[in-house]
Amino acid sequence: MNLTGKMGLITLLTDFGNQDGYVGMMKGVILTINPLVRLVDIAHDISPGDIESAAFVLARTVPYFPEGTIHVVVVDPGVGSDRRAFAAFSNGCFFVAPDNGVLKWILSRDRAAQVYSLDCEKYFLKNISLTFHGRDIFAPVAAHLSTGRQIAAMGTRIQDYNVEKMGLPEKNNDLIKGEIIYIDRFGNLVTNIPADFLEGGILHINIRHSIITHLSRSYAQESAGTLLAIHGSHGNLEIAVANGSAARKLEVKIGEPVILRLKNE
Amino acid sequence: MNLTGKMGLITLLTDFGNQDGYVGMMKGVILTINPLVRLVDIAHDISPGDIESAAFVLARTVPYFPEGTIHVVVVDPGVGSDRRAFAAFSNGCFFVAPDNGVLKWILSRDRAAQVYSLDCEKYFLKNISLTFHGRDIFAPVAAHLSTGRQIAAMGTRIQDYNVEKMGLPEKNNDLIKGEIIYIDRFGNLVTNIPADFLEGGILHINIRHSIITHLSRSYAQESAGTLLAIHGSHGNLEIAVANGSAARKLEVKIGEPVILRLKNE
Amino acid sequence: MNLTGKMGLITLLTDFGNQDGYVGMMKGVILTINPLVRLVDIAHDISPGDIESAAFVLARTVPYFPEGTIHVVVVDPGVGSDRRAFAAFSNGCFFVAPDNGVLKWILSRDRAAQVYSLDCEKYFLKNISLTFHGRDIFAPVAAHLSTGRQIAAMGTRIQDYNVEKMGLPEKNNDLIKGEIIYIDRFGNLVTNIPADFLEGGILHINIRHSIITHLSRSYAQESAGTLLAIHGSHGNLEIAVANGSAARKLEVKIGEPVILRLKNE
Repeated sequence: MNLTGKMGLITLLTDFGNQDGYVGMMKGVILTINPLVRLVDIAHDISPGDIESAAFVLARTVPYFPEGTIHVVVVDPGVGSDRRAFAAFSNGCFFVAPDNGVLKWILSRDRAAQVYSLDCEKYFLKNISLTFHGRDIFAPVAAHLSTGRQIAAMGTRIQDYNVEKMGLPEKNNDLIKGEIIYIDRFGNLVTNIPADFLEGGILHINIRHSIITHLSRSYAQESAGTLLAIHGSHGNLEIAVANGSAARKLEVKIGEPVILRLKNE
Repeated sequence: MNLTGKMGLITLLTDFGNQDGYVGMMKGVILTINPLVRLVDIAHDISPGDIESAAFVLARTVPYFPEGTIHVVVVDPGVGSDRRAFAAFSNGCFFVAPDNGVLKWILSRDRAAQVYSLDCEKYFLKNISLTFHGRDIFAPVAAHLSTGRQIAAMGTRIQDYNVEKMGLPEKNNDLIKGEIIYIDRFGNLVTNIPADFLEGGILHINIRHSIITHLSRSYAQESAGTLLAIHGSHGNLEIAVANGSAARKLEVKIGEPVILRLKNE
Repeated sequence: MNLTGKMGLITLLTDFGNQDGYVGMMKGVILTINPLVRLVDIAHDISPGDIESAAFVLARTVPYFPEGTIHVVVVDPGVGSDRRAFAAFSNGCFFVAPDNGVLKWILSRDRAAQVYSLDCEKYFLKNISLTFHGRDIFAPVAAHLSTGRQIAAMGTRIQDYNVEKMGLPEKNNDLIKGEIIYIDRFGNLVTNIPADFLEGGILHINIRHSIITHLSRSYAQESAGTLLAIHGSHGNLEIAVANGSAARKLEVKIGEPVILRLKNE
């Protein structure tokens, strides 16, 4: 193994699971180019092709990583079509991903973001497959970035990229109409209602056919099986079930409305 | 990325799965504080909130790690309640975990263990969520330990922590009454019967409605589908099915009794 | 932690999943022997005991790793029986695995491969279990190799090892009879038909009760739910469903025949 290279940090976020070696192939490509780079897995059990969930997980995870980190996202159902491939620099970090919306929340936070369309083939693998650009394009580009190669060398600067702010809920006086935007492994339901909307206190929350009348301080404060609302770790209102799954109890999906009435103080 | 820090070793054991980025966030927090630390995953598919299984996996895994390793356990259904958070030093290794029993088997082995209640907020993240202390407290505390920060600086030394030895089976002459204490991915049933109890040989083992009349030397020694008993890799008697799952074949759960009659030599 | 050692690269491919700490134990063993080694996971959700899938994933992943990499494979249903344990050197890389066929495709590519039967117990852990040679034999042997220990020191050179080329399909003029040899997480069906067999164009492909009449350029080119054929990332013909699972749609398993008629040019 050639031990040149720089000790950068590359993260991987994919829908590849842990059975086929696809993540391993990407890591092999990266370590062949830069044997000193550090590799960290963000998540690999994103549902196949679920771009929205990948965009959410990425936006919520990136702030905890150090400056200079290179984040690679491969949730890429459009691979092989004419969707573009991107390298971006935003808020001190690098991103390598398909142009399908996975970066929309990252790029919306930063008007100064630099986005490049990957068209410099010398940074790709020699043989590009039709179905696995994660291995053949994104991994080697990220590895070259980690060695200190300039992002501007990777392709053409573009301006027409997707930007989308996370949608805020409708608010009419003391009434808020939000929705579920993410469901995690525990069946916790993350809403699009920022926790600071609730500072004055709530009268009640409606979701599906259930009503919640107060905010809990912890899951464990309620008895097992109780439906509860809490200031979640993503900074938003979350609906959960103590020692259980709110997603299963309420049988809800992403997009389910959440109606909230604030205390009229 | 700031390249100060020390090359410590931190392991992570959680019930976070691989879909939401929660493990990734913890790693980002750790690498921001100590970019040189090594990170190793013990397991992340512990069933949500299954403290007993986490305690078992931890106790069986830790002996294989080098001295000085920092083990972080986040199976934490009581997060946000008044359960305490711990840093401990025991048998040459460090532990960072909630005070909910996940460390009971580790601490029971070592009367000289030092246990601290984490109350020094300067080693936490700035904003502490109600629901994710793994990211906001355990990860940064572990990272600071890995940089060489003293454990005594992290909080207040305490003595009233949970200690529990792994329960031994009842033994009356040639009769042993044990139970299943862990079930692994393969459906192998780990009992609480130490393998050295069996040295004189066995007459028969009863589990559920089945009888096993000898110890096997390997899974492969028996024909596919055969229920068998073996000296397992955890050092205990295990019940297994050759090329199959004993948990599925017998439909048993943790706590299932295992009755064993020894040879009367 | 003792910081001697060399900065080698060890990969792990197992059927251990992510719940029991078995992969963690192997990593602990390795890092105790060589604290500087780099560890990369290839895949751990191989179906329990599925040697064929492990052999496929290994053969397809290894070419992307740098020279000198040490690949450890533990899909080992015969553990504890008299199946041998191997260390091998082939095409610049090292392999440590049971003698059960997982290396057959690797070794068939290289007549100059050196294969050793692991019988030098000083490189094993002190206590060898009957059921977990991954931890007790393969991990420590790989770690010693990573420190620069010679492979010839690990055991006895042998010649009578399994070699098997990936089976090519039958070809009669314009008719090809192949089969499905691997099914991935996405439900994509990998055939044993090399993509370069198709260069002249196809008339139709039969699989199960379905007919596909052209090769697609990408998944996204077809409308969601469409059954399609594509030049896959493994270099073979793949059958897929746009935004879906071909395995589920066709209800096929490994071994399913695929009949292909080429254009008669």
